[in-house]
Amino acid sequence: MEISKRIQRLKTSPVRKLNPYAEEAERKGIKIHHLNIGQPDIETPKKFIEAIGKYDGKTLKYEHSRGIKPLLKKIQEYYDKLGIHYEEDEIVITNGGSEGLSFSLLAIFDEGDEILVAEPYYANYNSFYDVLGIKRNAVRTYAENGFHLPNRDEIEKHITPKTKAYMFSNPSNPTGVVSTKRELDDIAYLSKKHDMFIISDEVYREFVYSDRKAISFGTYKDLSENVIIIDSISKRFSACGARIGCIISKNKDFMNAVFRECQMRLSAPTLEMIGAAALYDLPANYFEESRKEYDNRRKILFEELTKMEGVIMKEPEGAFYVLVKLPVKNAEDFAIWLLKDFNIDGETVMFAPGEGFYATAGLGVDEVRMSYVLDSKDLKRAMHILKEGLIKYRKEVEK
Amino acid sequence: MEISKRIQRLKTSPVRKLNPYAEEAERKGIKIHHLNIGQPDIETPKKFIEAIGKYDGKTLKYEHSRGIKPLLKKIQEYYDKLGIHYEEDEIVITNGGSEGLSFSLLAIFDEGDEILVAEPYYANYNSFYDVLGIKRNAVRTYAENGFHLPNRDEIEKHITPKTKAYMFSNPSNPTGVVSTKRELDDIAYLSKKHDMFIISDEVYREFVYSDRKAISFGTYKDLSENVIIIDSISKRFSACGARIGCIISKNKDFMNAVFRECQMRLSAPTLEMIGAAALYDLPANYFEESRKEYDNRRKILFEELTKMEGVIMKEPEGAFYVLVKLPVKNAEDFAIWLLKDFNIDGETVMFAPGEGFYATAGLGVDEVRMSYVLDSKDLKRAMHILKEGLIKYRKEVEK
Repeated sequence: MEISKRIQRLKTSPVRKLNPYAEEAERKGIKIHHLNIGQPDIETPKKFIEAIGKYDGKTLKYEHSRGIKPLLKKIQEYYDKLGIHYEEDEIVITNGGSEGLSFSLLAIFDEGDEILVAEPYYANYNSFYDVLGIKRNAVRTYAENGFHLPNRDEIEKHITPKTKAYMFSNPSNPTGVVSTKRELDDIAYLSKKHDMFIISDEVYREFVYSDRKAISFGTYKDLSENVIIIDSISKRFSACGARIGCIISKNKDFMNAVFRECQMRLSAPTLEMIGAAALYDLPANYFEESRKEYDNRRKILFEELTKMEGVIMKEPEGAFYVLVKLPVKNAEDFAIWLLKDFNIDGETVMFAPGEGFYATAGLGVDEVRMSYVLDSKDLKRAMHILKEGLIKYRKEVEK
Repeated sequence: MEISKRIQRLKTSPVRKLNPYAEEAERKGIKIHHLNIGQPDIETPKKFIEAIGKYDGKTLKYEHSRGIKPLLKKIQEYYDKLGIHYEEDEIVITNGGSEGLSFSLLAIFDEGDEILVAEPYYANYNSFYDVLGIKRNAVRTYAENGFHLPNRDEIEKHITPKTKAYMFSNPSNPTGVVSTKRELDDIAYLSKKHDMFIISDEVYREFVYSDRKAISFGTYKDLSENVIIIDSISKRFSACGARIGCIISKNKDFMNAVFRECQMRLSAPTLEMIGAAALYDLPANYFEESRKEYDNRRKILFEELTKMEGVIMKEPEGAFYVLVKLPVKNAEDFAIWLLKDFNIDGETVMFAPGEGFYATAGLGVDEVRMSYVLDSKDLKRAMHILKEGLIKYRKEVEK
């Protein structure tokens, strides 16, 4: 009895790839500063659990496959405040943004179809692409350029008649890029011209640190047939464990398809939907506080990293990630070495090797993704350990 | 821009197919007795919400992709009591039994592979088969025979070199059949001989009303490489809205595959897992009370149905469904007529047409599935309406 080829195609997540080394280090009593995962440490607002505590239903029933009305309404209101109006049947609630992504791809792609992506991109996208047999048309972006898109002609070269959609996250995991108006306009133009969907993963919308805002693809009114927005409460409200996200689109055929997928799994979890609805009642300044905290961390990270010899990066603009080029031949070897053979007073650091965020084999081998989800003190400590580790590794191991 | 062929293949669920007619009837003020859905009306034990109310974590984090330890342990203990021992890494928690089913199928089947099934079967299986491009090798079973399996040689005729697994639910949705030892032995023998997985959906395990028990495929020790058990708290504890299920198997390659699928969607909802763990602490007699209640309803249903002229059925044995042959040409037409054109004092009944539970086109057209999830009084009333409706329909519509 064999496992399906669909699953055999799956690669190990770069975020979790080094876990065995981390577990071994922890067994030896080493404290690891985890910059490898995107799990925020910000407190989940109490409103979430309070709303759930008030639940007094007798029987915990299957809810509507689309999601509960109060949550749909709150999401509608949230988008109204952004100046983008969606009807209730233009929204479906999903089990986290992840289900939103996989349902959207399943609704559009058959085996062998192609997707336009800018590499590097969120590594978990690869799992969905691999399982569904979707080929990547990968447009390369560079650390030296802060991972922004090349010009429109260069992007267009990668589109084929089998390209069904462009998919990206904005602000970006793993690069921290916030797309410019020019970039979005180019994608909009190409999507119209080549009849492509745009799958816009906007779960980090509020996490932007420069003056400009993250522009939602929902604001492109003439693209309403093309645009699919993936959203989630995980990062916005630091509620990753709730597993509540949504898919939003004005394309009726697409939404019908997605709704049928929702029916297949009957419904999303009732109580978590109730909690999620309450989170949307938080005051507008809720985001301000989180944003300030992350901005502070971002500055520390950028300041410390650019002090290190040979590190290549631009200032991160959004989300809570940065992808940096390190002055080592192989960043995965270096990351493993940090876990196995290095520590300062019993402490070390952990990153996600960059290679897994690329579609093209061999790219990103000298890069790592770091999440700034630690408090300032730990983050400074982690940067110190990295700096000393880099010096030692280059002198003694790579020499 | 087109929707994928995978989704275009999906048929409408027979359980929800008549919803537009029901909504229309409700708009006209008609009260509908819903025998079409499998949503139990039994109260969800308070332990569930109480356990969640005690949650005091600061940040609702992604939990382990496999599920939280306390729940894995409770499920382990529950199976130990059934005399079947599983290690923790032989269990993964899923978003309901539905995710368990789709993950299991995805781990085994590539496009064009085949699955051995006894028709009729749970209609939602078809959605998973259609999306994944799995062909059915359908063994027919009959209302006259209480939908039990034919002999081994007859089953074996349907197995081809591309048949990767046998999948069924025991006790069965939609037929109410509880598989006999002979039937399970036959499937066990054929699975060994033809190197097939057995996907055993045992979510209705406790809902058995005769003296004998539902035998779990987990008790077949020499089949540990073949057997996959799908389980869920939805029906057992009347907690459908929690969306907590699990996959259990001793096949390491399969469990690795399934675990990677779990990683793709990061984790199951935290609070619902906490509530689920608490439900497994309920005293052993908890099931007794539910079972008595359902048994009573089952008896009413069977007694009333067999009094009606031309109805063909055997006594239902388990779950809370029954599939019956009605003395009409087309049961879907009849079901629609009941919603559109018939009522007694403003009340009518609703069923799921049988056709959607078959793989083979044209079968089951004179059958309907009924769920006995209403209390005795409503159930008796529903049977009265059905009886009168049948008489009128045959006399005036089909005449």
